[in-house]
Amino acid sequence: MTNHHRKTIAAIGSGLLGAMLCYRAPAADAGVAHPAAPAVDPAVLARIREAAMNSDWAFRHLTDLADGIGARLSGSPQLVSAVIQVAELMRSLGAQVALQPVKVPHWVRGEEQAELVNFPGGPAGATQRLQLTALGGSSATPAKGLTARVIVVNDFDELKARSQEVRGNIVLFESRFDQQLADNGYASQAYQQAGMYRFNGPSAAAALGAAAALVRSIGGANFRLPHTGLTRWKDGQAPIPAAALATEDADLITRLAASGPVTMKLILTPQTLPDADSNNVIADWPGRERPAEYVVVSGHLDSWDLATGATDDGVGVIGAAAVIEVMRQLNLHPRRTIRFVGWTNEENGGRGNQAYFDSVSKTIDTQAAAIESDDGAGRSLGVGAAVTNDSLTMLQPVLRALAPIGATVLSHHDDELGSDIAPLQEAGVPGFAPLVDSRHYFDYHHTAADTLDKVDPLSFKTQVATMAVLAYYLAELPEPLPRFKISP
Amino acid sequence: MTNHHRKTIAAIGSGLLGAMLCYRAPAADAGVAHPAAPAVDPAVLARIREAAMNSDWAFRHLTDLADGIGARLSGSPQLVSAVIQVAELMRSLGAQVALQPVKVPHWVRGEEQAELVNFPGGPAGATQRLQLTALGGSSATPAKGLTARVIVVNDFDELKARSQEVRGNIVLFESRFDQQLADNGYASQAYQQAGMYRFNGPSAAAALGAAAALVRSIGGANFRLPHTGLTRWKDGQAPIPAAALATEDADLITRLAASGPVTMKLILTPQTLPDADSNNVIADWPGRERPAEYVVVSGHLDSWDLATGATDDGVGVIGAAAVIEVMRQLNLHPRRTIRFVGWTNEENGGRGNQAYFDSVSKTIDTQAAAIESDDGAGRSLGVGAAVTNDSLTMLQPVLRALAPIGATVLSHHDDELGSDIAPLQEAGVPGFAPLVDSRHYFDYHHTAADTLDKVDPLSFKTQVATMAVLAYYLAELPEPLPRFKISP
Repeated sequence: MTNHHRKTIAAIGSGLLGAMLCYRAPAADAGVAHPAAPAVDPAVLARIREAAMNSDWAFRHLTDLADGIGARLSGSPQLVSAVIQVAELMRSLGAQVALQPVKVPHWVRGEEQAELVNFPGGPAGATQRLQLTALGGSSATPAKGLTARVIVVNDFDELKARSQEVRGNIVLFESRFDQQLADNGYASQAYQQAGMYRFNGPSAAAALGAAAALVRSIGGANFRLPHTGLTRWKDGQAPIPAAALATEDADLITRLAASGPVTMKLILTPQTLPDADSNNVIADWPGRERPAEYVVVSGHLDSWDLATGATDDGVGVIGAAAVIEVMRQLNLHPRRTIRFVGWTNEENGGRGNQAYFDSVSKTIDTQAAAIESDDGAGRSLGVGAAVTNDSLTMLQPVLRALAPIGATVLSHHDDELGSDIAPLQEAGVPGFAPLVDSRHYFDYHHTAADTLDKVDPLSFKTQVATMAVLAYYLAELPEPLPRFKISP
Repeated sequence: MTNHHRKTIAAIGSGLLGAMLCYRAPAADAGVAHPAAPAVDPAVLARIREAAMNSDWAFRHLTDLADGIGARLSGSPQLVSAVIQVAELMRSLGAQVALQPVKVPHWVRGEEQAELVNFPGGPAGATQRLQLTALGGSSATPAKGLTARVIVVNDFDELKARSQEVRGNIVLFESRFDQQLADNGYASQAYQQAGMYRFNGPSAAAALGAAAALVRSIGGANFRLPHTGLTRWKDGQAPIPAAALATEDADLITRLAASGPVTMKLILTPQTLPDADSNNVIADWPGRERPAEYVVVSGHLDSWDLATGATDDGVGVIGAAAVIEVMRQLNLHPRRTIRFVGWTNEENGGRGNQAYFDSVSKTIDTQAAAIESDDGAGRSLGVGAAVTNDSLTMLQPVLRALAPIGATVLSHHDDELGSDIAPLQEAGVPGFAPLVDSRHYFDYHHTAADTLDKVDPLSFKTQVATMAVLAYYLAELPEPLPRFKISP
C-alpha cells in the first residue's frame, strides 16, 4: 500500500550538480582556499552504491520469500513463516535481532461469486458471471448469497442524492482510477482519489442501509483482475459484505443500468477470526559512535492473500534487509545504528507500526530518521523526503552519489512517506522513501498478479542502492537532520 | 480462434497506388487513349467505405450481443439466444434468413482449483493457490481432486526424453508465446507455435499415462489470467484432465521444480454432455444478376465461456452482419449474392463450418469467395487473401478504396484465412480476411477479459469498411476470381 503524495519536486539536473558539491551552507566570507570537507565521505557513498548494484542478494532472497512462502496475510501461517525466515536472514548477517510481539487482525477470504441474474436485454434465465474479490474487513453474505438490485453511483454526492434507493440494495461505486495521472508520475494521488471509495464507500453505503457495497477495482490495467484492499468501518458500525469488482464488470453494469434495473446475486463468505500473534522483525546494525540513535530502514512483511506479494511489499522488506547486507559486505558501521524493521500487518490494520511507535514514543528523539519502501518494484528515480526546507540542501550528497544510476530527483513532501512510518513522522521524525517509477504499480497492486515476474532485478538494485546510500548518509551525518512534523 | 499465417506480404505504399489504378493487366499494345473502364465503380467502393466509417450500427449491435447475452459456448442457452438475436437482426435488414441445423458438442466447465501442496523451500503445511482454467475437452479429476508430482517439459522432445517419469504424474508444457513475434505482426504464427501444445500436448501426455496435463497459457500479457481453448484427443483416446495455467504460475513451478519435487493438488470437474442443437445463421442479400453465386462474409456466433466474447468473435460476426447493413443503407445489390454466415461452434468442434460445407460441396462452384473475420478487434491494415498470384492485381481496386482509412496492405496467403472457411478454401474457393492489427489480440483471447471495452469503435469501423468494400467488389466483378486450393 502507498498513501503519500508529493507536494513539490526539486529536480537535480546533472548540470546543477557541480554547484551542489557541499551540503552545508557556504561560509559567509568568500575566498576559502579549500571547500569544507564533506561530512560524509563521497567515496564511501559511491562504494555503497556500487555494492548494491553489483549484488543479486536481494533478488535471491526476494525469490525465497515470494516463491518459497507465497502470500502472507496477517493471521496466516505463511506470515509466521515470513517472520521466521526474515529474522533468520538478519541473524545470518550478524545483526542484532528482536521479534516485537504484535496482535494482528485475522480476516480470511472465503468463497466469492457474483452473477447478474436480471438485466436489460438479457434473455429470460440468462446470467452473467462477474469477477470480484472481497475487501479486507468485508462481512459475509448468507451462505447461499443475497440477491438485490445494483445502484450505481459515481461518488459520495450521488450516493447522498440517491440515498432513498440504497436500503436493501447493492451500491456500486464507479470510482475511476486516473491512469493518466499515474502515467505522469502521480500514481499515489490517483490511488488516493479512487482509494477513498474503497476505504470509505462501503461504510457510507452501510450507513444508508445497503445490503452490500462494491467498488470499481482500483488500478490501471484491463485484464478483469479485481484488486483487493482494506475497507474501513466506523467505530461500532456493523460491517456489510464489500468487494472490488473488475473494471470490466463495473463498466458492464454501468452500461446495463443505464437501460433498466440490474439485479445481482452475490456470495461472499469471509470470516473475521480472533486476533493472531505476529511480530515486527527488528534488526539493528550497531552504530560506532551513537548506537542508541537509530535510522530506521523498513518494508512490510505481510501481503494480501491473492498473490505472492513480490512487489507489495517483498521488494520493500527485502530491499531494506539488503541495506544491512551492504553494510556487512563493506564492513561499514556508520555513527548511528541502522535499524531494519520488517513491519507486520501493514495491509489490514497497521498494528505493527503502532506497536513499534508505542515502544519508542517516550524516547522519540532516538529515532533520527525513518525510511520506508512500499511503492512497488519500479526503478529508483531518487529520494522522497518529508523534511524541513533547509534539509534539502543537506541531502544533495545523497543525490550526487546516486546520479550515476539515474536516481537524480529529490522530491519534497509534507505528508507521510509510507503508512508504517507515518506515526514516527507525525512525531517529528524526518521521513524518507525511495522515489520509484510507480506508473504501472497499480496495474498489479493487491491483485493475484503481484508475483515475482513483476520485479525487474536491475530496477530492484537501484532501490536497494538508494536506500543503502540514504540510510548510511543519515546514520553518518555528524548531527541528525532537524525534526519535521507532518500532520496526521 | 485464428489459425492462418501469411506467407508473403505485398505492401501497397501510397506512392505505388498511382501505378495500380487498373486492376486488369494493361493491354499489350501501348498508346491506349483511355484506360479500360474499371469493372467495379470506384465511386461506389468509396461510398461503401464512407458508409461503414460513418455508422455506429455495428458497435451498437456488438454491445447487444456481448453485454446483453454474454458468453455463448456451444450448448449454452446463451448461444441459442445469440442465434435468435442475430437471425432477427438479419431479418430486420431485409435479408433472406435460414437457420441451418447443427448438432454441437456440449462441454461445460465445472469447478477449477489447484494448489501446490509440497515444494522446495516451502514451510511445512504451506500451500500456494494457482490460477488455471480447464481446456475445452478436458475430463474431470475425482471430485476431491488428484494430487501428483508436476513434470515440467519445454517441448515434445523433452516429453519423450522423460517419458518414464510421466505415468501417474501431471505434465506441464512450458510452451512460451513469442510476444516479440506477435509485436512484429506475426501473432498468428506465435499462436500456432505455442498453440500446438494446447491442441496436442494433453493427448501426448495421456498417451504416456499422465494423470493430467497443463499448458502454460498462450498469450502475451502478464496478469495471471489463464487462457482456455480446445485440446484434441486421438480417436478412441480417453481424455485426461487438462488445463491452462497462468504464465506466472507456470514460471513459479518451473523455478521451484529446478530445486526439487513439486506436488500439486488439482480439481477440475467439467462435463461432456450429449450434443446440443444449434444453428448456423445464413442470411442472403440477393445478387441482381447472378443470385445463385455467393460471396460468403462471416464470423462466428459462439464464444468461450469465460467472458462475453466481444473480440472472439463478436466483432467478426457483427462486423459481417454490418456488411449487409451497409448494402441496405446504400441500396446496393451487386451482381452476386452476398451471403452472411454466422457460424456456430467455431471454438470447440467446427461443426458449423462442416455442416455448411456439406450443404454446398456438391455445388461448390456457386461459392465465389469466402471472407471470415476472426482475428480480433484491431484496426484493419488491409486484406489477407488466399488467391492465385494473378488475382493479386485484380484486388488492387479494393486496396485503393481502402487507402484513405489506412488499410493499404495486401497480404498473400496459401493457407486458411479462418477455420470456418478452411473447408471451402480446401475445395478451391478464394479465401479472405480483414488483415488486422493483432499484436495484442492474444493478451485477451480466450480469457475472462475478452469484453466490450477491448473493442475500439473506430478500429471496428475499419474492419467493417474493409469487409464491405471487399465483399461488394468480389460480388460485383464480372467474373469471379480464379479458384485457388489450399492444402488441408
